[in-house]
Amino acid sequence: MELPEGYWFAGAHCGIKASAPDLALIVSVRPCVAAGVYTTNLVRAACIDWNRSITPAADVRAIVVNSGNANACTGKQGVADNEAMAASVAGALGPDAIGSRQVLVLSTGVIGRPMPIQTVQRGIAAVSQSLSGDAAAFEAAASAILTTDHSRKTASAAFSAAGRTYRIAAMAKGAGMIGPAMATMLAVIVTDYPLSPSAADGAIREAVDQSFNRISVEGHMSTNDAAILLAPPAGRDAVAGRPDFQASLNAVCLELARKIPTDGEGATHLIEIRVSGAGSDQAADRIARTIALSNLVKTAVAGADPNWGRIVSAAGFAGVPFDVRDVSLTVNGIPLFERGEPVVFDPRETSRSIRQQRETLIALAVGRGPGAATHYTSDLTADYVRLNAEYTT
Amino acid sequence: MELPEGYWFAGAHCGIKASAPDLALIVSVRPCVAAGVYTTNLVRAACIDWNRSITPAADVRAIVVNSGNANACTGKQGVADNEAMAASVAGALGPDAIGSRQVLVLSTGVIGRPMPIQTVQRGIAAVSQSLSGDAAAFEAAASAILTTDHSRKTASAAFSAAGRTYRIAAMAKGAGMIGPAMATMLAVIVTDYPLSPSAADGAIREAVDQSFNRISVEGHMSTNDAAILLAPPAGRDAVAGRPDFQASLNAVCLELARKIPTDGEGATHLIEIRVSGAGSDQAADRIARTIALSNLVKTAVAGADPNWGRIVSAAGFAGVPFDVRDVSLTVNGIPLFERGEPVVFDPRETSRSIRQQRETLIALAVGRGPGAATHYTSDLTADYVRLNAEYTT
Repeated sequence: MELPEGYWFAGAHCGIKASAPDLALIVSVRPCVAAGVYTTNLVRAACIDWNRSITPAADVRAIVVNSGNANACTGKQGVADNEAMAASVAGALGPDAIGSRQVLVLSTGVIGRPMPIQTVQRGIAAVSQSLSGDAAAFEAAASAILTTDHSRKTASAAFSAAGRTYRIAAMAKGAGMIGPAMATMLAVIVTDYPLSPSAADGAIREAVDQSFNRISVEGHMSTNDAAILLAPPAGRDAVAGRPDFQASLNAVCLELARKIPTDGEGATHLIEIRVSGAGSDQAADRIARTIALSNLVKTAVAGADPNWGRIVSAAGFAGVPFDVRDVSLTVNGIPLFERGEPVVFDPRETSRSIRQQRETLIALAVGRGPGAATHYTSDLTADYVRLNAEYTT
Repeated sequence: MELPEGYWFAGAHCGIKASAPDLALIVSVRPCVAAGVYTTNLVRAACIDWNRSITPAADVRAIVVNSGNANACTGKQGVADNEAMAASVAGALGPDAIGSRQVLVLSTGVIGRPMPIQTVQRGIAAVSQSLSGDAAAFEAAASAILTTDHSRKTASAAFSAAGRTYRIAAMAKGAGMIGPAMATMLAVIVTDYPLSPSAADGAIREAVDQSFNRISVEGHMSTNDAAILLAPPAGRDAVAGRPDFQASLNAVCLELARKIPTDGEGATHLIEIRVSGAGSDQAADRIARTIALSNLVKTAVAGADPNWGRIVSAAGFAGVPFDVRDVSLTVNGIPLFERGEPVVFDPRETSRSIRQQRETLIALAVGRGPGAATHYTSDLTADYVRLNAEYTT
């Protein structure tokens, strides 16, 4: 992966978790533009309020990310600990030059436990010594933001405009507590393409809407969701290539977003739900989300059970009007329900198709309208239950 | 159980399922009042449209219930099969005296498979020979309506008014595909308390709203949900004891409703979620439902994991405004979060309390408003996943 110029990265174990990496720094060499999209949960981590009060901004210098503790539902002490994290980063990077409010904070992990702030502060002092602009440092940071994820989630893109090559590099975490309605995980995206704060804000909102807002694992909106974009500030002259930048940003976010339910806790299938023929894209999205949140659909895919009535019946309670006589369904391309009538199909062949492929494609047409939407989710396995039944104990 | 006078029951195996009972008849000796509440799913079984076109009514004679096949998503053939079931019952009970439209139909089971109608018709002819008003016949009928349920679900009540004793007896089925928004299962309630059709309609709606609409297993609204009340017709004179009747009906329905998530597929706990202090009962209900539908809350209870942040964060995305600084939470009476601050508690003691009791009580106060609501759900276990991963295969 070729990284954009102008950023340093570091990741390490500081002691919040027993032994896994749990602290990351992303530093911009110069003051940079930052824009973010955050959880809409009323119960929010201290870091969300902090970041929301700062972005969009033109003079951000760093993002500190800790995993293992969400610093959410931690009351007044949590607010103080969050500020202490930002102050520690500012102090470590440039005691006189950088202020706390030039540092964004992301936390993820267990809710409701006090942050071991002295451990974190010692960690910040140590990790700031290992900052580097190379790929190994980027990957160390991408590892340190993970919680129950099995694998590091990164994506990158490059595009050319007016004879220059620009780059986007991004990291994300997320495998559980993934619900649609806002960013639903942590993502940090850095680019060397210059943007104004308001342009960055619009760009990250568009990308999140088409990616992280289209995925779910169990539909539980987190207290800590955030996606943040860092970019160099744009001068007065317009920079060529904005559509290319947005397309690349959208692609990077979608690539990252798909990795989340693919790595969903206990998941054995990525389920792609394409709804078409609805009255509007919003109506199609609502149907796709309702199917994606159905435990009965998700367990059927886990068991490679072509129990398609669960899919059609989930569509029926999405709150979007349609006529069942206009409804057709295919799973992995196999027709199961056609204009309101069941299709004679081979259950064993269909089951085999689901079992043998890592991705299951559910395509539901609900009429002849222009509305379409795609949603991604994981299947629901006994391992998901085991992982989540004993998370804190 | 003492049954109300005037009803006959029968239940038997007819061959839809491999060997378990799968066909029930509930017959009123005289034409009776019938009122029903039905699924609001757009994708509905043929029987739902049939019953809805008939009730409320004053001249119903019978309800036929089959389990093992939902007769939903079965297109035009399903509509014809449903009518054939009603016609068979009318023919078996009184070839000249009873019409098809005096017979209500309830189906439950797999969606999208053709009804084996000849098997069912032969079954109706046979089971109508064993009708009886005794408790054993009632229980045979209550067994024949079950699908993945472990246990028969019945409830009864008696009350006196103006020197007479009236009785209510009810049966229900449901263990999966239980979602809030409408009746969410099958229930048949018979009484000897006289009612007009409109009074019966109001009474069943009130009772369902306070019982079957307050439960969920996984929140997936069924295509076949229905709760039907049968009662003798009221004459012109008002019958004494209406408030007592309604209170008894509400109690019977709530007793039945609680049995459904208690017997939820794979469930090891009934979770009772009491939300108070909201702006309105509706707001409290919305918060309670959102918590009840959270897989993360349900898996935590299954694992006796006092991971209370999942409960508070679920409340935060219910779409109801509140201030987290007003939020307090107890689980089984143990304070975990108090006015926005985490409480120091003993996780092992709390875990033991959850593990050792069959019911888990979650009590969440979100402010000082007058709104309160209670919702019941089951926990989410690996057994739920196993049961649902291979339902049709």
